[in-house]
Amino acid sequence: MSTPEFDFVTPIERRGTASLKWQRYEEQDILPMWVADMDFAAPPAVQKALRQAVERGVFGYGEIPSGLIDTFVAWCAEQYHWAIEAEWLVWLPGVVPGLHLAIEAELAPEAGLAVPQPVYPPIRQLGRLRARPLVSVPSEATDWTPYLTDATQALVLCHPHNPSGQVATRADLEQLAQLALERDLLVISDEIWADLLLDPQQRHLPFAALNPDAAARSITLMAPSKTFNIAGLSCAVAIIPDPERRVRFRRQMRGMMPDMNYLGLLAAQAAWQEGAAWLAALKQQLNANLDQLEHWLQDYPEIGFTRPQATFVAWLDLRQLGLNEQDFLEGGVALSLGEAFGTDGYLRLNFGCPSAQLDAALQRMARVIQTRRGR
Amino acid sequence: MSTPEFDFVTPIERRGTASLKWQRYEEQDILPMWVADMDFAAPPAVQKALRQAVERGVFGYGEIPSGLIDTFVAWCAEQYHWAIEAEWLVWLPGVVPGLHLAIEAELAPEAGLAVPQPVYPPIRQLGRLRARPLVSVPSEATDWTPYLTDATQALVLCHPHNPSGQVATRADLEQLAQLALERDLLVISDEIWADLLLDPQQRHLPFAALNPDAAARSITLMAPSKTFNIAGLSCAVAIIPDPERRVRFRRQMRGMMPDMNYLGLLAAQAAWQEGAAWLAALKQQLNANLDQLEHWLQDYPEIGFTRPQATFVAWLDLRQLGLNEQDFLEGGVALSLGEAFGTDGYLRLNFGCPSAQLDAALQRMARVIQTRRGR
Ligand SMILES: Cc1ncc(COP(=O)(O)O)c(C=O)c1O
Ligand SMILES: Cc1ncc(COP(=O)(O)O)c(C=O)c1O
Repeated sequence: MSTPEFDFVTPIERRGTASLKWQRYEEQDILPMWVADMDFAAPPAVQKALRQAVERGVFGYGEIPSGLIDTFVAWCAEQYHWAIEAEWLVWLPGVVPGLHLAIEAELAPEAGLAVPQPVYPPIRQLGRLRARPLVSVPSEATDWTPYLTDATQALVLCHPHNPSGQVATRADLEQLAQLALERDLLVISDEIWADLLLDPQQRHLPFAALNPDAAARSITLMAPSKTFNIAGLSCAVAIIPDPERRVRFRRQMRGMMPDMNYLGLLAAQAAWQEGAAWLAALKQQLNANLDQLEHWLQDYPEIGFTRPQATFVAWLDLRQLGLNEQDFLEGGVALSLGEAFGTDGYLRLNFGCPSAQLDAALQRMARVIQTRRGR
Repeated sequence: MSTPEFDFVTPIERRGTASLKWQRYEEQDILPMWVADMDFAAPPAVQKALRQAVERGVFGYGEIPSGLIDTFVAWCAEQYHWAIEAEWLVWLPGVVPGLHLAIEAELAPEAGLAVPQPVYPPIRQLGRLRARPLVSVPSEATDWTPYLTDATQALVLCHPHNPSGQVATRADLEQLAQLALERDLLVISDEIWADLLLDPQQRHLPFAALNPDAAARSITLMAPSKTFNIAGLSCAVAIIPDPERRVRFRRQMRGMMPDMNYLGLLAAQAAWQEGAAWLAALKQQLNANLDQLEHWLQDYPEIGFTRPQATFVAWLDLRQLGLNEQDFLEGGVALSLGEAFGTDGYLRLNFGCPSAQLDAALQRMARVIQTRRGR
């Protein structure tokens, strides 16, 4: 699918371009459907802003332009109906560093975390890397209470949820906010996927937008990186309504955290300022790809699957087929390993690519499955 | 001065371009001669590599290309006669985060640091920010012994030295290496200015290149950011010959440190691969600017000054004139405050700009000085 303005069809050669996704299997005939970036060009507005900077030619130290702040405040208002203040924002070169900083800034050395399971691997790793007790809560649970321990002082949300693509409802979030209030917990909400709700009628509801208490105990992390496919430009933002938490967070950053790079700043601003139409077209493409995937899955009822409400990844339950990452790799398709997300027997398929590439990957996967069935 | 290939003359308008250096005084008639980036375009090879990436249009996650590693290994061999191994390299989005990581990875919580004074402010701040005792050693001292305490477990070098622009000799470095050996100290060597020795005959000597013991106890930080004026692209590298230190350093990075951004990777590779001729031309321009500055200084013998051997900054002793940052700011020139470097009464002038801009700044400074003299 392509509109006159936006091309989601023409393949872009990424081999030999220092792409993490494509470099790993560059020498082999393997389609990379793993790490979460898309094989689409960024919005034309991003390319235009970068092109201007490159032609100007000076790449000295950048400073957050007031236009970036204004445009992100406006984005939150328009997209999420969330009224934020400019001073709540702390700019960062990545969401994952933001998770680590939030923990170090806010929690006592022995304080523990609760995280969903399965979940994006760097969220699972927060316990080990920050040397804190971590409890896992089944990602479909709406009441986290039974899983918490006395050590638990923070909830880490992945909202929308990677890898399932499910979106917590207002009722789910309110239950979490109530629990956080009762136990006086910090809530770190990774909302990097906020803009990729696939139903064009559905609106992302930030945890911090629920009520003033939720806001005061929250550190929300957002980024233009998934939305506009600029993960390689290292731009993200922490939204911290409470001024004391903000001071502690900034103190934690000092020296250790590099600034956002200059081109990332410009790209982020252009994306939020002018990227909405591109994003609407992208969602159409992602929905079409999901339809294609669901159609394919009709032939494989052994594969467990719930259509994601958000993201560009599909979480496939392959336990019944007994096929693993290696089987598909040998068949020419690289998928993300469920184990890394905390659940064996699943694989994650990234469908953020031209539909012909998805089709080729699904054909290869079909061959792997048919071979297994034939045995 | 310009060559047919490289233009160091034509001014590039940086107002309104999210430049840290120019944004601060954007609304005022003030020439920014402070923060250490240059008002020159990056080498054409960097622009070309970035242009290609922008036209390709996909900015997903980057991966260190083997070409980047090879080209930096070759750069060290050619420029410093330093034979390094590819596996010694740890890529980073900044030199300053590298200093912090080195300390956290290698030193016990109570262990202290020795740093020169004056020095680049983030080096001075390492003590406070990492909550460790810090002793200052006069930057002209060659024997650091009298300044160390029992707590001192690491020396932090700034080599070449910012702000003085002086270059430690082999004998100076050997004395430090001997001290480090005797006391079993870690040596963290910030060599970000390594490529900007202004005498084209002089070659940078990395501390770690002295001998195998020096290498084993060293963490060297380098970057293409000053050399090629791409500080805003957030690319740097730690060179850590000792494998155990490398493991600890990488462990310290995990989660907390964002990856180098995609365009920074491409720019760094292009710079090291094809930037040598541009760098030679740049040095000519910087030498011409220094001549211009020295000529101007003949009228102001009250200003203390030693010609820098490296960098694009001049360290001016204004104690006798009794003029401070604010006086020059009111006269339309922004300089860096000596206090931030640890020495009152000095100001640092960044002369990395077209010579007409330097000339304009010096004329404004002359007016400030003449007014003071006239009183
Ligand atoms: C939930 C989640 N958080 C964070 C990230 C990555 O964030 P960053 O690359 O900015 O560290 C991802 C990438 O897939 C993700 O899925
Ligand atoms: C000695 C020294 N180290 C480090 C830096 C900056 O490094 P980065 O921007 O990569 O953190 C500078 C910048 O002026 C410097 O002078």
